[in-house]
Amino acid sequence: MATCELISVGTELLLGDILNTDAQFLSKELAKMGISVMHQCTVGDNRDRLLSLLKEAAERSDIIILSGGLGPTPDDLTKEVSCEFFGKEMKLHEPSLDKIKEYFAAKGSVMAEINAKQAMLPEDCVIFPNNNGTAPGLAMEKDGTHILLLPGPPRELKPMFLECAVPYLKQFSDKTIISHNVRTFGIGESAMSELVTDLLDSQNPTVAPYAKDGEALLRVTAMAETEEEAENLCKPMLDEIGKRLGDYIYGIDYNCIEEAVVELLKENNMKIVTAESCTAGMISKRITDIPGASSVFECGFVTYANSIKHKILGVSEADLKEYGAVSKPVAEQMAKGALKLSGADIAVAVTGIAGPDSDSTEKPVGLSYIALADKDRVWVKELRTNRRDRDYNRYVNASNALNMARMYINKTIQG
Amino acid sequence: MATCELISVGTELLLGDILNTDAQFLSKELAKMGISVMHQCTVGDNRDRLLSLLKEAAERSDIIILSGGLGPTPDDLTKEVSCEFFGKEMKLHEPSLDKIKEYFAAKGSVMAEINAKQAMLPEDCVIFPNNNGTAPGLAMEKDGTHILLLPGPPRELKPMFLECAVPYLKQFSDKTIISHNVRTFGIGESAMSELVTDLLDSQNPTVAPYAKDGEALLRVTAMAETEEEAENLCKPMLDEIGKRLGDYIYGIDYNCIEEAVVELLKENNMKIVTAESCTAGMISKRITDIPGASSVFECGFVTYANSIKHKILGVSEADLKEYGAVSKPVAEQMAKGALKLSGADIAVAVTGIAGPDSDSTEKPVGLSYIALADKDRVWVKELRTNRRDRDYNRYVNASNALNMARMYINKTIQG
Repeated sequence: MATCELISVGTELLLGDILNTDAQFLSKELAKMGISVMHQCTVGDNRDRLLSLLKEAAERSDIIILSGGLGPTPDDLTKEVSCEFFGKEMKLHEPSLDKIKEYFAAKGSVMAEINAKQAMLPEDCVIFPNNNGTAPGLAMEKDGTHILLLPGPPRELKPMFLECAVPYLKQFSDKTIISHNVRTFGIGESAMSELVTDLLDSQNPTVAPYAKDGEALLRVTAMAETEEEAENLCKPMLDEIGKRLGDYIYGIDYNCIEEAVVELLKENNMKIVTAESCTAGMISKRITDIPGASSVFECGFVTYANSIKHKILGVSEADLKEYGAVSKPVAEQMAKGALKLSGADIAVAVTGIAGPDSDSTEKPVGLSYIALADKDRVWVKELRTNRRDRDYNRYVNASNALNMARMYINKTIQG
Repeated sequence: MATCELISVGTELLLGDILNTDAQFLSKELAKMGISVMHQCTVGDNRDRLLSLLKEAAERSDIIILSGGLGPTPDDLTKEVSCEFFGKEMKLHEPSLDKIKEYFAAKGSVMAEINAKQAMLPEDCVIFPNNNGTAPGLAMEKDGTHILLLPGPPRELKPMFLECAVPYLKQFSDKTIISHNVRTFGIGESAMSELVTDLLDSQNPTVAPYAKDGEALLRVTAMAETEEEAENLCKPMLDEIGKRLGDYIYGIDYNCIEEAVVELLKENNMKIVTAESCTAGMISKRITDIPGASSVFECGFVTYANSIKHKILGVSEADLKEYGAVSKPVAEQMAKGALKLSGADIAVAVTGIAGPDSDSTEKPVGLSYIALADKDRVWVKELRTNRRDRDYNRYVNASNALNMARMYINKTIQG
């Protein structure tokens, strides 16, 4: 089995200015291919240290994937040092230069002279074209050691890895690893784990619980010679988990609950409208993150101020005064008002105190009311996160609103 | 100056199952103390590979900080391998054992036998008590090399580092490093770099360009004996950059353009309203990401469907038909309609084709019109990203709308 090592290049990583999401992405993708990542290293934009790391890496790994340091400025030297290490000369690669020029022309600007450096490439290499930036990537080999160079920005690295590096690396992959993520909502990681304790000991497939952003998931991973065999190992386990976790599961291999909700709305030919106070656009943003959401989502109202809740959505001024903006009656009326204005089939509404500070009342940070209305009735859920974390509270509020829509469509809504 | 190296231990990191936020946190904190992190490495829960990495690290660094692998299970072996490397014996540390027992008692449970392993500690070490979990951390020294062990979970590592490791590391900190980020909008990294080429050679402070999510920034970093001296080194450089980049700069040390916009609106006692088609709530979400946004933001309209653009914002049906939803007149009318409905001082509106697929017209993916209206007039900017990346297009559209608000307030708006 081929061993691989990741080297992230960039002083900004050593200073902690940016988070190394590339290393996680690459490790996950390589694991899927059955290529073992044994080391991840980060080094600054420094010739000597990079060269010394390349020497160590070449001694212990078959494949070295470097990311970052392919930019146009003089401190970008990953390509130069890698070529020095392999004793390869660089020369101008005209098609790459043309592609860089086209990239700027398409944006209505002209290539700066310094970008020409990015088209200087070693001889005898496999070029990975960059469709999302200027720096091409590449792969080269010497004495059985393969080096791949990828640009650092995740928007450039990810597609290039999937489109170019994966086909290149297929030669090292003799096992297939398949993972499926069973995504749940409304149950904690511990409670979920207790429902499947015995399954967590399984060896192939393995079953592992994870928690993230107020959700829990189970990852089922099988390894086999072929994809089909791996899928056959996963299948009965996924069925068993389905029986145990039931309606907590919103989908397998969905990225997020909004994906499940958009899918359900489409299947049922339904439209949803949003009325948001503290989440202020996050629900509508998340719904429309899903391509094709326009068939299920037509409009949303961000009613942050009390006066606007009354003026636009028709929330009673007396109720706003008596119960406060963060209250059950206000959530109900926001949902009803949005439903009426839009002509959608269902409306979700959120009003809450996201924090970090409380509003002028004595209500606690993290309190929120989440409503769902159809033309006949309205359901409200009270949520208390007991956290002062604004981002977390807003995210979890939005997720709960989306989950209410899911449960409504599945006819399991309560409240 | 002391050099430091981070070793993250954990097979889950090599598999890409979790993101290494510890490395970023530690690097940032160490940089503040003037301790240089020259390498970050990640290795699995494997004795031989960890031992070999420790040998390499001890040769090139004064301080080695290991995180992870202090758990109670047999695969957690960071402490064991570190002691083996230093030739130190471990013995039961009663106060730590009591603390672990107390930790479980406080949660209403009883310590499992395996957790006793976490109270086995080397002799002659400085113990870092863990107030947020069971594994104590520690520091030990041999022949001038210092090893610090910290637990992996961020909610345990972060407070332990700040409370225990920072005081321990003070002995190595004789310099202070200060960084300032000059954030710009509307200029690319290359074009920006050309305006400051000569400054990029500066040694103290250093000046380095970065690009992220459609923005470019310059980082100015100075090192000195005291914070004040470091600030004095940065000051003239920041002034010079200010002169060169002028109104491209939206702020120094802001995290994002919405922070600058909310600040400017507050200073000028102004309110903003949003009318969003393709961004569908992202602008209002980003404005309200900033705590205290309620004084400048009261409402937003997410008008995804054409019928809603007409019904809610009063966009002309004839114009929608003749020019299409993604057009200058529609953007203008969306902004005007939202301004009128809200009573805000300015309105921003976005209509565009975010992709990945085009709409039913022949307009290209990535085309958008971004409008800003006040009570007297309206400005429109046409944007073409030439990318099919939905997330990128939406983010950059939202940023451009926010930037138009910034330029309006600064009286430099064009279009």
